[in-house]
Amino acid sequence: MKPAVIEGAYLRDLLAQPAAVTATLTALNHGPDLARFRAAFTSGQLQRVVLTGMGSSYTALHPLQLQWVRAGRTVVRVETSELVHHQPGWLTPETLVVAVSQSGASAEIIRLLELNRGRAPVIGVTNTPDSVLARAADACVPLAAGLEATVACKTYVASLVALSWLEFALTAPDRWEDAAAELRDAANAMGDYLVQWREHVGSLAALLGRERATFFLGRGVSLAAADTAGLIMKEAARCPAESSSCAAFRHGPLELLGPATQVVVFAGEALTLELNRRLWRECCAAGAHAWWCGVDSAQPAFRLPAHAAPALPLLEILPVQMMTVALAALGGREAGQFARASKVTTVE
Amino acid sequence: MKPAVIEGAYLRDLLAQPAAVTATLTALNHGPDLARFRAAFTSGQLQRVVLTGMGSSYTALHPLQLQWVRAGRTVVRVETSELVHHQPGWLTPETLVVAVSQSGASAEIIRLLELNRGRAPVIGVTNTPDSVLARAADACVPLAAGLEATVACKTYVASLVALSWLEFALTAPDRWEDAAAELRDAANAMGDYLVQWREHVGSLAALLGRERATFFLGRGVSLAAADTAGLIMKEAARCPAESSSCAAFRHGPLELLGPATQVVVFAGEALTLELNRRLWRECCAAGAHAWWCGVDSAQPAFRLPAHAAPALPLLEILPVQMMTVALAALGGREAGQFARASKVTTVE
Repeated sequence: MKPAVIEGAYLRDLLAQPAAVTATLTALNHGPDLARFRAAFTSGQLQRVVLTGMGSSYTALHPLQLQWVRAGRTVVRVETSELVHHQPGWLTPETLVVAVSQSGASAEIIRLLELNRGRAPVIGVTNTPDSVLARAADACVPLAAGLEATVACKTYVASLVALSWLEFALTAPDRWEDAAAELRDAANAMGDYLVQWREHVGSLAALLGRERATFFLGRGVSLAAADTAGLIMKEAARCPAESSSCAAFRHGPLELLGPATQVVVFAGEALTLELNRRLWRECCAAGAHAWWCGVDSAQPAFRLPAHAAPALPLLEILPVQMMTVALAALGGREAGQFARASKVTTVE
Repeated sequence: MKPAVIEGAYLRDLLAQPAAVTATLTALNHGPDLARFRAAFTSGQLQRVVLTGMGSSYTALHPLQLQWVRAGRTVVRVETSELVHHQPGWLTPETLVVAVSQSGASAEIIRLLELNRGRAPVIGVTNTPDSVLARAADACVPLAAGLEATVACKTYVASLVALSWLEFALTAPDRWEDAAAELRDAANAMGDYLVQWREHVGSLAALLGRERATFFLGRGVSLAAADTAGLIMKEAARCPAESSSCAAFRHGPLELLGPATQVVVFAGEALTLELNRRLWRECCAAGAHAWWCGVDSAQPAFRLPAHAAPALPLLEILPVQMMTVALAALGGREAGQFARASKVTTVE
């Protein structure tokens, strides 16, 4: 029997993601002028970058970190809660802080702004133009993703886009136009995938088991989707689910593989695709329910539309979102409806 | 009915941890002379540090990172697999790489040494004195933890001790003697806890449920124990279990709380202890099976002996190890016996 999907606000937000990406791209045309940060970057006055956020605002920072580290920059990602209480040593005038918060008002962000008080320059990335973060940051990058009911989805993809813009704005402004065109195409590709949402959710409901232990595995840029998956499966579907790098999974957790586990392996970037495929095959051979998520997946729900490189994280999260809807339906629930969590986390 | 504990090699290794810590402290007296690294640190020639490893060799690096970041240094932790494939930009002559590998021969470590070839100076920390890592590193810190049958336990605590030594050897050699005395006391405190292992395992078998979703939550230094817990619960007890910071748990996963979840909250450092206690109380109020792990825990199995600050990560992992033994017994299995994993991970 096909489980009934309760079509609520979270599902409407999921389907509005392509429009959110387009709106973000438009808003970024009026984004802040970052010339002085660019100059400080080039001159070496800014020696290191700290990327910080909580929840999916934190996971969305992964691709930017990789891009800048690949370019030889010193860039770390630190959860805001750890930064303020256990690693305040990062906050110096030579450090650029990029703080992402959809609400711009979570408990950790307020603590960070109080603690920092001009120690380190801060670029805020937020969906709330009049928030504490937007007002206190030295520059504010708008998400303009529109209202979001519960679990981050529109604001997550909007954050990925805004952080991609930030990369170019600070280190290669002349190459942004080309990247923006690829991201506009990605919005269309997202739409192509989401138009089939009923088929995807239906097929996943037949494939997935709520009682199985669930793992999301990837490398490099795909760790953004894997980590966000671990988060939204708990938050939107109330299903425990873990993420790790494919390599870390071999160092112990592999021991769990068997019919009681389900695994999604993200194909990811070409660089490590064959290593990932080998792990996926081993998961299948061990009797686990294992799915390959990439442009060449045999399962339509896990098959990504063809895309340019910067679009990968925008597309990889879509099959996971479909999983949350399918698993919530299997549990007789509306996906993404909060019982305990809240849209803005106000307690540290 | 009390489940039968199968007393195998992993359990013997657990009980031998205090002796391993003492052996490591003795070996460190003959550790390498790091004077030239110390000079390069002081002169600013070494501008940043990359801490790398896989599995529990990676989680053991957490306290060292915090100590150095608190002291204002630029220090990152990167899984070796991600470092070699997706973040090789870190490998420069201005970067000190600290690579931890118990075997000194895992696939990722071999790849790192091939890729680096003198780009960045490397300090190796390993339990295998004639390993690839020991031979190729610019300096080798010995663990001397003795043979270990399967899941890392002796080598994990030995790594914590060796990395604590490294902190002092590079930045405050005159203060090592005091720290070493505290760590010798910690070995005794570990022994005091472990002598009660039958009582701890028995009480945990009565408290815990294999079918519940399990979370380990902490902040700061306690993230070493939380992350190692997530790993060894899967590896040694074949039970899914996740770790996260207490703050990150509030940003979504909180939604899962209820009678089907069990949560261990590490009290941790004084700095954030009351924030952690508040979360633990909320978990209890939400109907979850929630345990407080600290010197003032009501449950003897989760009650840590009194200790000096550097001993905290050595003690916090002990209750989790007892959990793995209890849960394996509940599942009718010998804890820490491998079916799929292997002691040395040879595939990337």
